[in-house]
Amino acid sequence: MPKTPAYAAPAVGKPLAPFSFEQREVGPHDVLIDILYCGVCHSDIHQARDEWGGAIFPMVPGHEIIGRVKQVGQHVTKLKVGDMAGVGCMVDSCRDCQTCRRDLEQFCEKGMAGTYNSTYMDRKTPTYGGYASRIVVTEHFALKVPPGLDPAAAAPLLCAGITTYSPLRQWNCKKGDRVGVVGLGGLGHMAVKLAASMGAEVTVLSTSRAKEADARRLGAQGFEVTKDAGTFKKLSGRFDLILDTISAPHDYNQYLRMLRPQGTMVVVGVPPEAVPVNAFSLIGGNKRLAGSMIGGIAETQEMLDYCAKHNIVSDIEIIPIQKINEAYERMLKGDVRYRFVIDLASLERA
Amino acid sequence: MPKTPAYAAPAVGKPLAPFSFEQREVGPHDVLIDILYCGVCHSDIHQARDEWGGAIFPMVPGHEIIGRVKQVGQHVTKLKVGDMAGVGCMVDSCRDCQTCRRDLEQFCEKGMAGTYNSTYMDRKTPTYGGYASRIVVTEHFALKVPPGLDPAAAAPLLCAGITTYSPLRQWNCKKGDRVGVVGLGGLGHMAVKLAASMGAEVTVLSTSRAKEADARRLGAQGFEVTKDAGTFKKLSGRFDLILDTISAPHDYNQYLRMLRPQGTMVVVGVPPEAVPVNAFSLIGGNKRLAGSMIGGIAETQEMLDYCAKHNIVSDIEIIPIQKINEAYERMLKGDVRYRFVIDLASLERA
Repeated sequence: MPKTPAYAAPAVGKPLAPFSFEQREVGPHDVLIDILYCGVCHSDIHQARDEWGGAIFPMVPGHEIIGRVKQVGQHVTKLKVGDMAGVGCMVDSCRDCQTCRRDLEQFCEKGMAGTYNSTYMDRKTPTYGGYASRIVVTEHFALKVPPGLDPAAAAPLLCAGITTYSPLRQWNCKKGDRVGVVGLGGLGHMAVKLAASMGAEVTVLSTSRAKEADARRLGAQGFEVTKDAGTFKKLSGRFDLILDTISAPHDYNQYLRMLRPQGTMVVVGVPPEAVPVNAFSLIGGNKRLAGSMIGGIAETQEMLDYCAKHNIVSDIEIIPIQKINEAYERMLKGDVRYRFVIDLASLERA
Repeated sequence: MPKTPAYAAPAVGKPLAPFSFEQREVGPHDVLIDILYCGVCHSDIHQARDEWGGAIFPMVPGHEIIGRVKQVGQHVTKLKVGDMAGVGCMVDSCRDCQTCRRDLEQFCEKGMAGTYNSTYMDRKTPTYGGYASRIVVTEHFALKVPPGLDPAAAAPLLCAGITTYSPLRQWNCKKGDRVGVVGLGGLGHMAVKLAASMGAEVTVLSTSRAKEADARRLGAQGFEVTKDAGTFKKLSGRFDLILDTISAPHDYNQYLRMLRPQGTMVVVGVPPEAVPVNAFSLIGGNKRLAGSMIGGIAETQEMLDYCAKHNIVSDIEIIPIQKINEAYERMLKGDVRYRFVIDLASLERA
């Protein structure tokens, strides 16, 4: 196979630039996908800047990948040439441990292989993500993208979509539930669309009124400003479920107060420091503070099928790969509504 | 009605001493219970010393009350004269809000009336607890104590029992589950008995080996020492459920690490300071940190019936009321296995 053109962060803090790498040959259980679109996730920035530690350079980011199947290995049954396929945050796991067998590959006891800034299960070969013209992946970790989903707008479902869909399902979001969505960004806007589609009464909690019209257009029935301290008192005991998508420092105790008895707050964002939690914030009302990380492959497929059925995709702005560094700067300012998606046609094909 | 003899803390920090108070007359929905036994809960000490703020003196502590029904109001149907009855941590709530209607009276939207150091729903009349010869309580908040339960050893079920039974039920403790019980005191020893009775494989996590033999006698299959830092690594990913009964400062993140994916840690103890929680401790493994506070009346009755069926009571040391101050000192040193219970026959009857 010819070298795969891509964009990579060559070293920590350096702008992304053209790069190419050797892709593995298509094995009997592999599919080769020509990448059409790749969403730009905030974690791409964290990792390209080594903000989580242990970054592997050069790094080809991107784990919201949609493309067309170009070639399949002889034992592949899940996909065929010409199918629309997706790849999310994982490209492999041991597929044998108890956790993998429970369809929670993201928590594989041996450690899953991330789509980029990671290694394959040999723990040596680096993985390269979706800011590239193609990817080879074992069929188990390829998703079927149902017809009817716009491929560019569906790309962010592979991370932002499943990251919000999974906690809504885990906590049984249903008609009539009162759901609070904290933060209206890439994750938050998907959370609003998904929770509303499940029949919940959604309230967006945001630092300012700037996104109120957007929130309502996306399906929210309420919008409250968290900079106003009165909000927490006003909404005391209101929500069955709060989905907290923000990574800025904030006081979980204030948000827990807005839960009804037996309500749950799920964090999917990672604040820079540990957050002090008062035991009474949880004990008073049998409340729960939970975490959630993407979803397993079966649940990711379920989510794609659900989104196709309910006509849900991400709100996106398509960019050529050459604009990726500028896009990162704009994301850091919150200047995107709500996800950049790279059109890989902009990358010169090899 | 004659004045009710009792023991009270006359003011913050003062030793408990004889006291008497006016008990309300028995109304049409009330029962009058001659108190036989009252368990001594650690929260009695916290409140008598005003460590949680807002204490009302003189204070008659005690919310693990067992006695015999002496008189019933004309509309009472739940109990009859001569029945063995119990009173736990609550003596009233609005019984009308959504939360009360969901059988979660402990989280009544108007605020429940605590058995002591509280006021009735008029928000004026102080409540007096079980360190007394009798109590008048509306029948809804009286529990039926099934025959076969030793009344002295059953008294602690009204707080320690329900506080540990409820989270085990909320989180569906079942045969084969791996349950960690953190701290082997009044709460912890009930948690071990109850979880073992539900078929769980119980491991006690304690600061030293001192209580290992006790833990095994109570039903634990494992015993690990938390002062040994290697314990947290060794038990990484082990438990489906952790019940954390301790109120001393400790690092929740270390304990969360011992949960399996989708595992839950329930805190029932209240450390003196907020505990810093890393979002990654929850996100990595879809884990949950939950609180739980006693249980509603229906669930408390269910617990008593369960304990009668499974022959579960507390391990107790019976004391006369005159030894209460000494008992508090011994509790502060951890010198009780595992609950003091006051024999109210020691109190001169009026």
